[in-house]
This record gives sequence, C-alpha cells and structure tokens, in this order.
Amino acid sequence: MNNSHLIEIPVAIPRATYRVLVGTELLQRSGTLCAKEKLSGRCAIITDENVGRLHGAAVVESFVAAGFDATLLAVPAGETSKSLATAEDLINRLLALGLDRGHFIVALGGGVVGDLAGFVAAIYLRGLPFIQIPTTIVAQVDSSIGGKTGVNARAGKNLIGSFHQPRLVLADPSTLDTLPNREYREGFAEVIKHAVIRDATLLEALDPAAPRESLAPILARNIAIKAAIVAADETERTGQRALLNFGHTIGHAIENVAGYGTLLHGEAISLGISAALEISQRKYKLPAHDAERVREKLRAFGLPLHLPDTLTIDSILAATRHDKKFEEGHIRFVVTPHLGTAQVVKDVTESDLRGALEALRK
Amino acid sequence: MNNSHLIEIPVAIPRATYRVLVGTELLQRSGTLCAKEKLSGRCAIITDENVGRLHGAAVVESFVAAGFDATLLAVPAGETSKSLATAEDLINRLLALGLDRGHFIVALGGGVVGDLAGFVAAIYLRGLPFIQIPTTIVAQVDSSIGGKTGVNARAGKNLIGSFHQPRLVLADPSTLDTLPNREYREGFAEVIKHAVIRDATLLEALDPAAPRESLAPILARNIAIKAAIVAADETERTGQRALLNFGHTIGHAIENVAGYGTLLHGEAISLGISAALEISQRKYKLPAHDAERVREKLRAFGLPLHLPDTLTIDSILAATRHDKKFEEGHIRFVVTPHLGTAQVVKDVTESDLRGALEALRK
Repeated sequence: MNNSHLIEIPVAIPRATYRVLVGTELLQRSGTLCAKEKLSGRCAIITDENVGRLHGAAVVESFVAAGFDATLLAVPAGETSKSLATAEDLINRLLALGLDRGHFIVALGGGVVGDLAGFVAAIYLRGLPFIQIPTTIVAQVDSSIGGKTGVNARAGKNLIGSFHQPRLVLADPSTLDTLPNREYREGFAEVIKHAVIRDATLLEALDPAAPRESLAPILARNIAIKAAIVAADETERTGQRALLNFGHTIGHAIENVAGYGTLLHGEAISLGISAALEISQRKYKLPAHDAERVREKLRAFGLPLHLPDTLTIDSILAATRHDKKFEEGHIRFVVTPHLGTAQVVKDVTESDLRGALEALRK
Repeated sequence: MNNSHLIEIPVAIPRATYRVLVGTELLQRSGTLCAKEKLSGRCAIITDENVGRLHGAAVVESFVAAGFDATLLAVPAGETSKSLATAEDLINRLLALGLDRGHFIVALGGGVVGDLAGFVAAIYLRGLPFIQIPTTIVAQVDSSIGGKTGVNARAGKNLIGSFHQPRLVLADPSTLDTLPNREYREGFAEVIKHAVIRDATLLEALDPAAPRESLAPILARNIAIKAAIVAADETERTGQRALLNFGHTIGHAIENVAGYGTLLHGEAISLGISAALEISQRKYKLPAHDAERVREKLRAFGLPLHLPDTLTIDSILAATRHDKKFEEGHIRFVVTPHLGTAQVVKDVTESDLRGALEALRK
C-alpha cells in the first residue's frame, strides 16, 4: 500500500477529532482504513445508481477484503432522493440487513448521497458511525466535512436534518475523472467561495484547464479552510460557520425557484455569489475590481452570472424567506468587505436583495 | 403564583443541566416558566387530539399571556402517529408557520407526542429547543426525561430517532385526573421497573387506590431515578442507561407482535418484566419471593402477567431479533440478581427467552 501521496487534514471538533484523507487509490484502501478506525462487522455502503455502477464494486471489494460484511445499497441519482421517503426506505433496508448498533454506514457519492446517508446514519437506531467517501468536488471540499446531514422539505433544501459527524472522510481525486464536465465545473463555485471568505490567493491557483488528477493540493487547501471553520463552530452557534453561507442565501432561493435539477447547485451558487458580491460592493465597500476578479474566475469555470429570464425576482425573494438563515424574522446575510474575509451582517434589506438580483439580469 | 408545592429535579447531562418540575398548575404556569428559560418569540405546541381538547387551551393561553406567539398543532391520538410521515407533516406545518431557529417547540401529551415532537424538534432545521409537558404517568416518570426521541419503523418501535434533550420538563399530576383507568394503571409498569432496578422500597409506596393528585412525591422519586441514570450515560454508551431496558426486550417484542394498540405499552412491559424476573430467578439467583413481590404489585395495578393465547412464542422470539438491544448478533439482556439492582448480561440465550415466555403461559 502506497501512502506517499496521502494528505491528512484533521477536523478538530470538540468531542472527537476525525481525519480527512486526500489521495489516489483511497477507494481501494477504504476497507483497510476503516478497519484502522476500530470499525468492525457489518456495514451498508449507500450510494446512487450512477456512482454505484462506477465505483461500487471497488469499494465493496475493499471492505470485504478487510473482513467486513459489506452490502451496497443504491438510491436513484439526483436531488429527489434527498427526501424523508428515501431515508425511510433505506432504514427499512438496513433493518432487513440486520444492521445494528455495533455496525456502520458508508456514504459513497456526491453531496446528495452524503447528506442522505449521513442523515440515515444519524437517525437509524438513534445514530451509527459513518464514513464519507465523497466523489464530487462539492462533496470533497464541502459537504462531506462538518457533519451537516439532512434531506429536503417540500418548502426548501436541507430544512430537515441533524449534525452528525463522520468518523473518517476519504477524498480521492481520481473519482473526479468520471464526472461529466458540467458537474466537474459546478464544484468550483464552493472552491471560489472558500477563496472569497478565507484565502484570496487561492483564486490564482484555480485553473479550469488543469488535469483533474493534479487537484489533490487544491482539494486539501479547501478542506483545511472548511475544517478550521467547522472546528470553531460545530453546530453553527458562534457565527463562524455562517460565513460558509456566502452566496447561499440567494443561491438556494434561485435553486429552489428554478426547481431542483434545472440549475446545478454550483450554478445557482455562482449566481448567489455574484449577487452577494454586488451587495458587498454597494453597501460594504468591496472594491469593484475585486468583485470583478471573482466573477472572472466563475466565468472561467463556465459558471453562470446571468439570472435565467424564466425566474422572476419576486419568486426568488419569496423563497429566501424560507431559508434557515432567517432568525426571528431578521435575515443574516454574509458579505465580503474585502477578498479573503467575510462577515455576517443583519442590515441587508429586501430592497438590497432585489437590487442585487436585478443586477444579475444585466 | 404559588410555588409551594413545586419539586425540582435536575438532570445533569454533560453539556447543560436542565430541570424537571413536578407540581400542580404547571400547565397554567408553563408560559412564564419558558420565558424564564430565555426562550422567546414563536412556538408550536404539538399535542394529540385528545390531550389538545383537554389541555390545549390552558397551555396556549399561558404562553400567549407570557408574550409568546403560540400555535397548537394536533396529530391523531395513538401510536400510529409516531411515524416519519406524521413527522414530515408536522415539519411542513412548522415551515408554514414560519418557525425558525430562534423559536421552539413544546410537546404536550403522553409518550407518543413527546417522542414525536422531540424528534421533530431534533431534525427541524437541524434542531430547535423543546419543552416537555408530559400528561401521562409513563411520560412523566420516563419518556419525557433523557432526550430519547423518535418514531417507529415498520419493523419495530423507536428504530428511528435522535438524542435531543429538552430544555425543561413540566410534570403536572393533575393532568392524570383525566386519564382513563386503564391508561393510568399501565404507567405503573415503568414505576415498578424503576423500583426493581434501583429502589425496592419504592414498591411499598405504590398504592393503586391512592388519589391521583397525591402522586407528586412518587413521580419525583421516579424522575430522580431516571435522571441519575441518564446523567451517568446520556447517549447509552456506558451500559448504565441500558438498565432502564429491564423488561423491555421481551415487552417490546410482545407489543410489536400483538400489533401496536392491542396491548398498551405498560401492559406489554408488565409481561416483559415478569419474563425478565423469571430469567433472573432461573439463571441469576433472584429469590422466588422477590419475583413474586414484584408480580404482586403488577397484579395490584391490574397489569397482565399472562401472555394472550393469540400470540405465538415463535413470533415473539423472531421480533426480539429486531431490537436495538442486539449488538453484533449478541443480545444484551437486563436481569435483577436482587431487587433494587440490575445488570446487563450477555449470556441469555434464545432458549432462556423461550423458557420465560412459556412461563407466561401458565
């Protein structure tokens, strides 16, 4: 086993630090790595039908070789699987498998699978350990880290869920090879968000033409940003973690109004980032050339900056009202006064949101 | 406001101690007491249709008088409401009410409502504070304390859930006045269980003819037993909390096979207690007269000791295999070598279970 290219990033949450490992051939090593985490016995590997077809066999084989009784459970690919109904279906399948409290769950896939399987692990028998094996950029740099798990409600995304930290995260950039170009590129919306809120020099390191297998250092840098923020604010109490919502208040609303799946998550977030830059510029002194520098990078990754004409501004504003970021009726909005930093403000008005959305029409 | 008869029991869990208050007129004081807990703004009071009819108005009035924007949400009475489908329905209603992270949930009712509303509070927007106002014996001495929340799966009770501690528990014995006799008496199965595992002298204090309004000291004694065990083992890791499962492995299986609602929970637990006494006697040296002393008390409260002929022993044994108390295929079973103490053992066999069930036929 070759560990030479393995990068390890600790996520130091209060109760127990866990590790994110970045490197190639992690799928093939996943069973052995879980055995080292003192996990044993039976496990269910939850995936979607696409990822299951591509990587399911390799992961099951690795777990079986390491002595686990491993079963692959696939759900249909796509956001509609992120529902309580699918969670219940998985729970019934886990019960039929005889998975008990001494066992564990593995999430193999993108953000939908990670959030869904993590939530199932949180509520199945009041909580089993789980392992994240993220296979998309967004999942590797963002959603697999930090313990946010959940499913969607009719009224909006991620409105149902738990904080349930994984025991281990295995991010293998070679899984990105099989991503269609559009799904690959959308992931960079979260990467660019990390650059905006914590590390502006990261922007220069991002090259849409770089080979995917060379991405490990970029992934690791992003994971370290996410890990530091999560460690400072595991359950979103101190305001640190809220900074990760940069671009998401408007982005989620756009995604919701467009209907899940019309715009990819990262595409909606690209629009949300552009709107948040607009508000930061108009009201919090972000220099215009800094906003342009970020938009330029979004554009380079083929991410949208123009709001589709089919989406009305009124419907998007209405959708922001269902966002968890509202508290006691006040919106908490994240702005960047200068690149590499961010802060939560409470004085963004609906008219500011409207102005920023109108700017996305130009 | 008269505090003279208020008994206060702290539940000292690691992150934050909360209080259980026992006394009359607590429903009428609930709003003021929540205001003292630094809760504010909007709340949803989740109840069932029966309890809502009896006590809903008094509680809503108390919250409104204390300055809260309170709404009563009722679900159908009975175990079938303890489902993911009902949880999702409640979540959609909470979203429609605009309940956000600054708000809170109140559970007003018996064990079903407490478990369901607590679970909704655990997963709604990844967790809101919640208050328990238990209105049955079982809920007051047991299910409202300790943060176990959840719903049932097709395959068994409480297989889906979270640990989510309440912020405050208000146990008012005057709510017991409206309980039908059978529902009142079933609650004493858990009380008798507490006596068996922690305090045999409690058995003598239990009198089925005692007026219900005189019950506060008995409730408080039971709550203190439950609180001490929960404080020692919040999330069921050390084995302490497992002691509360005395009588429940077989009890749950009987309840499951009978079909929820045929036997009341406490009635099934009475059978489970009798079976666990049988095993304790045959294999762990519990004196026969001690077992008889407990059975005598169960009988005095009109609780069953004879397994209904319609339930086959094979089906009950099959149902125990779905219990969370199985870990890695081994059953963890709670026995009492002498009254007032209990321990978890791992050497109870299926044949021991069968023998104890056969004894329930005699």
